[in-house]
Amino acid sequence: MPKLRVHNIAISLDGYVAGPNQGIDNPLGEGGMRLHDWAFATKYGRSMGGEDADGDTGLDNDFLMAGDVGIGATIMGRNMFGPIRGPWTDHEWNGWWGENPPYHHDTFVMTHHPRPSVSMEGGTTFHFVDEIPEKVLRLALEAADGADVRLAGGSSAVRQFLLAGLVDELHLAVVPILLGAGERLFDGLGTLPGYERTSVASSPAVTHVQFAKLA
Amino acid sequence: MPKLRVHNIAISLDGYVAGPNQGIDNPLGEGGMRLHDWAFATKYGRSMGGEDADGDTGLDNDFLMAGDVGIGATIMGRNMFGPIRGPWTDHEWNGWWGENPPYHHDTFVMTHHPRPSVSMEGGTTFHFVDEIPEKVLRLALEAADGADVRLAGGSSAVRQFLLAGLVDELHLAVVPILLGAGERLFDGLGTLPGYERTSVASSPAVTHVQFAKLA
Repeated sequence: MPKLRVHNIAISLDGYVAGPNQGIDNPLGEGGMRLHDWAFATKYGRSMGGEDADGDTGLDNDFLMAGDVGIGATIMGRNMFGPIRGPWTDHEWNGWWGENPPYHHDTFVMTHHPRPSVSMEGGTTFHFVDEIPEKVLRLALEAADGADVRLAGGSSAVRQFLLAGLVDELHLAVVPILLGAGERLFDGLGTLPGYERTSVASSPAVTHVQFAKLA
Repeated sequence: MPKLRVHNIAISLDGYVAGPNQGIDNPLGEGGMRLHDWAFATKYGRSMGGEDADGDTGLDNDFLMAGDVGIGATIMGRNMFGPIRGPWTDHEWNGWWGENPPYHHDTFVMTHHPRPSVSMEGGTTFHFVDEIPEKVLRLALEAADGADVRLAGGSSAVRQFLLAGLVDELHLAVVPILLGAGERLFDGLGTLPGYERTSVASSPAVTHVQFAKLA
């Protein structure tokens, strides 16, 4: 059975996945980029634009790469797609990632304000869907055609899918910094009933913790 | 200069140092004991009663032991001393630790309801002080007579001393579990201005993170 997987969700010691005051000039909020320093230190993280790059290999690099293996479609929340809230004023905004986004397959953006699908260079097609998580997952599984689906973020989308019990695998990257304020991943999720921790592994920079849905 | 040190504060992935519904039958709140499983797996943790014991040695054991080295007095919040809130109805409660508490020196309990000092077996004397953190620290430093002072907890006391910039060294034990609710260590502390992270080291069970006050 194809799975819904969440990978490389970076979380601070105080439980935040984004800092305060997110906006177009600060998509991850104040200090939020520090959650991703470890990823940008890796070979894979640095080569996401497609170019080969120097960088760390090892555990963090492995975890970062694993997030892209066997994925046939992506789901994301609208706040991960862009900083615009409410109705679209035009259809100019096509994500943070430029003309050739790093997805290369059907990518479903959850929004209460649908707009026409847009095909980007490199095979990424953004679809804008105003549907409940179950329905979005069904659409993404169809598009993935037997491969797994990745739920990319942001935290509100991840929370919704976790609450609905739809996530099969969750990988957190615990980064030993404090953000002080911002968006918390686990608010309202309790102790994540229905899931069990399946592994813990630490590099000098990050503690990787994996959870899986109980059978 | 003698220091004020905080050691082995166990914190969950979602930022809690105690679970919900703390009380006499559940001093660490629901699930809160799980934060300390790693400590009770170590040789030092198991021998705290004074008896030598089998248990894990290695990183976690080292960190647990380090918390007791060079300490001449202890400070704790009243909620760490016991579950009783408000005025004392009698002076029968002398802490969770039995007749021979594991401190063996002057131990200052911060409370708005002072009561006479009580000397226990093994050298621990509990003093009950209704003073601001600066004053409590001064009393403890005097009692420590040149050694360091340890701030043992709980989280409210640690927060107060951190906010006042009185803590010199802070050691967190990040435990990869979720408590879902309870008492958070970092609420209201922002990004801990005035402190820097000085080390990160992980065992299979715990990620140890140390902070120190900026000079």
